[in-house]
Amino acid sequence: MSKSIFYHAGCPVCISAEHDIINLVGEQNVELVNIGKDRTRITEAENAGVMSVPALVTPNGNTLHINFGASMADVKG
Amino acid sequence: MSKSIFYHAGCPVCISAEHDIINLVGEQNVELVNIGKDRTRITEAENAGVMSVPALVTPNGNTLHINFGASMADVKG
Repeated sequence: MSKSIFYHAGCPVCISAEHDIINLVGEQNVELVNIGKDRTRITEAENAGVMSVPALVTPNGNTLHINFGASMADVKG
Repeated sequence: MSKSIFYHAGCPVCISAEHDIINLVGEQNVELVNIGKDRTRITEAENAGVMSVPALVTPNGNTLHINFGASMADVKG
């Protein structure tokens, strides 16, 4: 199975969801990207359809928005 | 690992998320509950913190709201 990508911005909602996703999917199956810190990957996230974080982009390219931490506009500041 | 429970109401957003969750977590690790049909489980879902569907309640009791299909008020009608 190829990896999912979990985009977050370090917010409390994000961290909580990150732990849940790792428990569910397995740490080896998900790449964690903090787009609050690694801002070079914001465009990649937006191109994948990420409208808010936390969000999980699945191996088949679907984007699952999980709860609501912050809008992309807030992350970009 | 004990099972997660995926609550949905049969809406297109729900079905799409259901397929993604099954692919990610594995069909044997998640119970699928259509609270639009199986209305006896609406109270159980609400007690688990489900405010909208689709939602995934993890084995440790956290509720992940995924995208947005329908509010519990809409499901209850």
